[in-house]
Amino acid sequence: MEKTLVILTFACSVIALLFAFITARRVTKSPEGTDLMKKISLSIRKGANAYLKRQYKIVSIFFLIMFVILGIMAILNLLTPYVPFAFITGGFFSALSGFIGMKIATLSNARTANACREGLNKGLRVAFSAGSVMGFTVVGLGLLDISIWFFLLKFIFKLENEAITSAILTFGMGASSMALFARVGGGIFTKAADVGADLVGKVEAGIPEDDPRNPAVIADNVGDNVGDVAGMGADLYESYVGSIISACALGVAAFHDIKAMALPLMISAIGVICSILGTFFVRTREGATQKQLLRALSYGTNFSAILIAIVSFPLVYYILGSDNWAVYFAILAGLISGVLIGQSTEYFTSDSYKPTKNLAATSETGTATIIIGGLSVGMLSTLVPIIIISVCVLVAYFVSGGASSASMGLYGIALAAVGMLSTLGITLSTDAYGPVADNAGGIAEMSGLEPEVRQRTDALDSLGNTTAATGKGFAIGSAALTALALMASYIDKIKSIEGGAEKVADLSINNPTVLTGLFIGACLPFVFAALTMNSVGRAAQSVVKEVRRQFREIKGLMDGKAEADYASCVDLCTKSSLREMILPTIIAIVVPVIVGLVLGCTGVVGMLAGATVSGFLLAVFMSNSGGAWDNAKKYIESGVHGGKGSENHKAAVVGDTVGDPFKDTSGPSINILIKLLSMVSIVFAALVVSVSIL
Amino acid sequence: MEKTLVILTFACSVIALLFAFITARRVTKSPEGTDLMKKISLSIRKGANAYLKRQYKIVSIFFLIMFVILGIMAILNLLTPYVPFAFITGGFFSALSGFIGMKIATLSNARTANACREGLNKGLRVAFSAGSVMGFTVVGLGLLDISIWFFLLKFIFKLENEAITSAILTFGMGASSMALFARVGGGIFTKAADVGADLVGKVEAGIPEDDPRNPAVIADNVGDNVGDVAGMGADLYESYVGSIISACALGVAAFHDIKAMALPLMISAIGVICSILGTFFVRTREGATQKQLLRALSYGTNFSAILIAIVSFPLVYYILGSDNWAVYFAILAGLISGVLIGQSTEYFTSDSYKPTKNLAATSETGTATIIIGGLSVGMLSTLVPIIIISVCVLVAYFVSGGASSASMGLYGIALAAVGMLSTLGITLSTDAYGPVADNAGGIAEMSGLEPEVRQRTDALDSLGNTTAATGKGFAIGSAALTALALMASYIDKIKSIEGGAEKVADLSINNPTVLTGLFIGACLPFVFAALTMNSVGRAAQSVVKEVRRQFREIKGLMDGKAEADYASCVDLCTKSSLREMILPTIIAIVVPVIVGLVLGCTGVVGMLAGATVSGFLLAVFMSNSGGAWDNAKKYIESGVHGGKGSENHKAAVVGDTVGDPFKDTSGPSINILIKLLSMVSIVFAALVVSVSIL
Repeated sequence: MEKTLVILTFACSVIALLFAFITARRVTKSPEGTDLMKKISLSIRKGANAYLKRQYKIVSIFFLIMFVILGIMAILNLLTPYVPFAFITGGFFSALSGFIGMKIATLSNARTANACREGLNKGLRVAFSAGSVMGFTVVGLGLLDISIWFFLLKFIFKLENEAITSAILTFGMGASSMALFARVGGGIFTKAADVGADLVGKVEAGIPEDDPRNPAVIADNVGDNVGDVAGMGADLYESYVGSIISACALGVAAFHDIKAMALPLMISAIGVICSILGTFFVRTREGATQKQLLRALSYGTNFSAILIAIVSFPLVYYILGSDNWAVYFAILAGLISGVLIGQSTEYFTSDSYKPTKNLAATSETGTATIIIGGLSVGMLSTLVPIIIISVCVLVAYFVSGGASSASMGLYGIALAAVGMLSTLGITLSTDAYGPVADNAGGIAEMSGLEPEVRQRTDALDSLGNTTAATGKGFAIGSAALTALALMASYIDKIKSIEGGAEKVADLSINNPTVLTGLFIGACLPFVFAALTMNSVGRAAQSVVKEVRRQFREIKGLMDGKAEADYASCVDLCTKSSLREMILPTIIAIVVPVIVGLVLGCTGVVGMLAGATVSGFLLAVFMSNSGGAWDNAKKYIESGVHGGKGSENHKAAVVGDTVGDPFKDTSGPSINILIKLLSMVSIVFAALVVSVSIL
Repeated sequence: MEKTLVILTFACSVIALLFAFITARRVTKSPEGTDLMKKISLSIRKGANAYLKRQYKIVSIFFLIMFVILGIMAILNLLTPYVPFAFITGGFFSALSGFIGMKIATLSNARTANACREGLNKGLRVAFSAGSVMGFTVVGLGLLDISIWFFLLKFIFKLENEAITSAILTFGMGASSMALFARVGGGIFTKAADVGADLVGKVEAGIPEDDPRNPAVIADNVGDNVGDVAGMGADLYESYVGSIISACALGVAAFHDIKAMALPLMISAIGVICSILGTFFVRTREGATQKQLLRALSYGTNFSAILIAIVSFPLVYYILGSDNWAVYFAILAGLISGVLIGQSTEYFTSDSYKPTKNLAATSETGTATIIIGGLSVGMLSTLVPIIIISVCVLVAYFVSGGASSASMGLYGIALAAVGMLSTLGITLSTDAYGPVADNAGGIAEMSGLEPEVRQRTDALDSLGNTTAATGKGFAIGSAALTALALMASYIDKIKSIEGGAEKVADLSINNPTVLTGLFIGACLPFVFAALTMNSVGRAAQSVVKEVRRQFREIKGLMDGKAEADYASCVDLCTKSSLREMILPTIIAIVVPVIVGLVLGCTGVVGMLAGATVSGFLLAVFMSNSGGAWDNAKKYIESGVHGGKGSENHKAAVVGDTVGDPFKDTSGPSINILIKLLSMVSIVFAALVVSVSIL
């Protein structure tokens, strides 16, 4: 069975990567358009490349230091010798996912704009193909890395199953660290540029979005690529791999058998094939309405999801046998919950529904009321996802036999996360296509293409907001489930260490170390959100000052007679975002160790639970507030409540600007944070057990 | 010992009430000023009275319904027959505290303004005396109610100690329900009026604060009284009583002895005397700077706190004996933590320190950046209080012998809350004086008194913001500790019910029912904050429209030739706030019962922990964001960053307006919410145990 497993997983990962490669070739063969378009696209590409180069330089110093620390711990016998290497590969593949995604996105933006000159369907195909490259690169690399490690540890080093999962979990820590750097750094870059461009360009100077006179306009477009593409790629690579490896670890703990480890891998592998099949259904006819466009995308995703739901039943039955086939419902619960959370996100953030419509109406009474309104929409929107996740946890736990064996139940929770992310290949394609369309719109505007081209890219872009909402639902939901699974893995890990079992004997919630851990853990996402928002604020302020300076000092800029100094804004964003990304990441790595040393293992468990719960709430709150403000603004721009340029619109722009770091920097970073905390705790478990008193 | 206990507590409560009565007589004897001042004060008084009358009417319907429900449960033997009556008296005394506080505040506002005509010291004395009346009414009524019930249950009905504490806890539920109504209703009223007055008056029409031409100006002043005074009175009555009764309950559970119950009562009783002594030190000389004014107030508070720290040592030693005297350090930890949380609040919200100064600077780049900045200041400010509370919980638990007996440790946590609130008599006096000074400023402005009078009232008012910050520290800190103590009481209560012990056998944080309870509980403060903010938003919008209408339709209003229709704004605020206060309170009462029935007792414990943790974070975040915006605005008004009327100032006003519901409606209500949830759970414990399956 082990061999079949490795071969199948490896095969599916190769299929995914091949599919991505072929799609990429097809995309890059399509024409890039006019010379001006090529020039703009090139400067975006250059800016994005320059950013990533510098980011990877800084990150590699971090990885080097961590490699040394983990190496020393391995020498001290606190870790197995594979751990430092697993850590590095996790980081490497996560970075690679982001890099490839960004590469193809920056190669496709002008091509999408150019295809939109011919028609909407063509544009959709190019943009969606670019998204697919990223989607399938992420899942392909994820499965590749897991299968290679599995092969090495099982067949070359001939380790026990428990030792294998333990080493593979570290690999998740590498991926999470990299993802956090990418998300935070990219998130700060994109929002600093966006906020800076909007505040001076739109609000003060009154020029439209993506106007070439705005010195921050290229930086804004670069930001979409390094934040929304490279950041998201690294992030979802981490989610995908994290859910699989935590399920493997819990499966081995529950069954002491390779088959329990096979299941999550097989479901993911099958998911890749189903997702590829789904992509062929994404096409639309010319002149399609927004609803029809959305249907085209949903059709592909739903097809894949239903296919997985059908295929995974015999799979579970075949792998786990007739005693445990009910675990299937855990996978199904995850799949359905992901969709439901996405729908709830859409309800609260799309201007087709009441919350965002009402929010737009609050602009009538000014900026303050739309801010208050957006915050309360976000806070209120936490209720439905909380209920969905709670039901999912209970269902996954109890159908998997949690009532008789807790470890079986926890395995079920981990599988729910795997089920939720099994369609990642296609959901990520629909998600990653958004920034490409956004960029295409920018290029269309800057290179003065016909208005109908801009209309088409706008139609694609606006659709991207909806798919991004759904994507966020999956990301947040799976993060919560995976974090819970990792918390269970942490407890297992402690128990497996000599003298560890007694350290986690009393995990009662009224045990004061668990309670204080809970308090501290719950506080972390708040602190983290504050730091990242502050970073965006600081970076944005420097951009605002630079843009104002250029407007003041470059004569003829406003009349279109002189060109803005785009590079200086890109450079400013690069510098400040790289400087700002370091502290949050270090906090995420240092705090679990300190908590462990001071409060002991029970404190760490409390911390993980607290961070998961408050992180989930804060991530949903911030993402949805941001989404609602964004769409309320767009709704007003469509002509209601005074339309573009009115006082109400100005109020809505402020709301949107506040929402930017909410939904694209702090919110998504929290998803990574809560998993990274658990992975760090697992890696440093032996140290904590041997040193702490409590 | 029991008799001495009752007599001493009763005596101290009578002393507190007498002191309040004498102070009230002295205040009301001072002159009210010119006819215009009398007239304005009268309309504020009328508005506030009318509001409270209508509020009490609605609330009494609620209490009647609850009385019937509890009565039926008592008949079904799910509760002791004293419970429904205890519930009613708790609500009654809580309401009475708010009512008396508001009565004296509305009688003192003009008198304070008038005293400020003579000098700053005179003004301070009048305003502070009015605050003292409220402070000592609250503690006096609290001790009175507890001692009467104790007397009845012990000596008339001759109940066991356990049965006594159990009945007295219900009395806390009555107080909490009333407090929630008062805080939410009053909070919505005051902020709807404030936001409405600011948005149209300050921002749109450009007239100063408290300008008599603003139709919402009387409503704004009424709001200060019904929200910041009556709401706060009911709120802190609940906190005070809640901390004492939860300590009594845990004390009896730990020691099975009346002496453990005596301790919290005695500390509170001694606290009353120390607080009265402290009030005599609050005076300042003419022309005092703000720092000297603050020193005058701190001198009184610190004197009381140190006195209590000294006196409670022999008290603990005498009552608990040489084996358990270390419990003293739990009380001390509480006392110190309260002060430290207050200081941290001051650091993050006062314009003497960096966070608020930096926040003011963000106004340079517009409204969006000051909003982002304020949110991140608030989120970041949760870290220090979380650490303080965590350390306090650990110290209180372990010094009280938690390592050998968990119930002793939990008793220690409850005593820390009692220690924190032991100086409530004087801290509440310094807190409640703020709204009086605020009102006095309004009256000075509206009745056209000399500019130096307004300067003096402004000095007093601005000081009030700082003391309010400290007061909030105590309120939030004690709420968290009390909520933890009540959670422990809940577990004790379940164990005491037949068949209950097995229902709380596994309280591990990785038990899925505990976990889902945690998720749901943590979500409640978010939903609650959203609902209350929405309510403020809705109510404020109606005020905005009404004020705009009056500006438009009443000819000559802006030139001061015609008078605004103040009453219509007061009426509008009254109606909307009363309508809006019902839903949040009902949620707080219904949810614990539903969670209990669906998830069982372990789910309830998870819910209580989740609500406490996320409620604490959200309350600190919201209060401090609000405070920082408020003071950033005042800082700009002092002449920096462009000063009053500049674009930066306008941005800061928006921040302040967003902060209003944060700090005065949602934030403080959450404190009550987290305790009410536990009390409701305790009262319905028997029902849940007998009905739920899990």
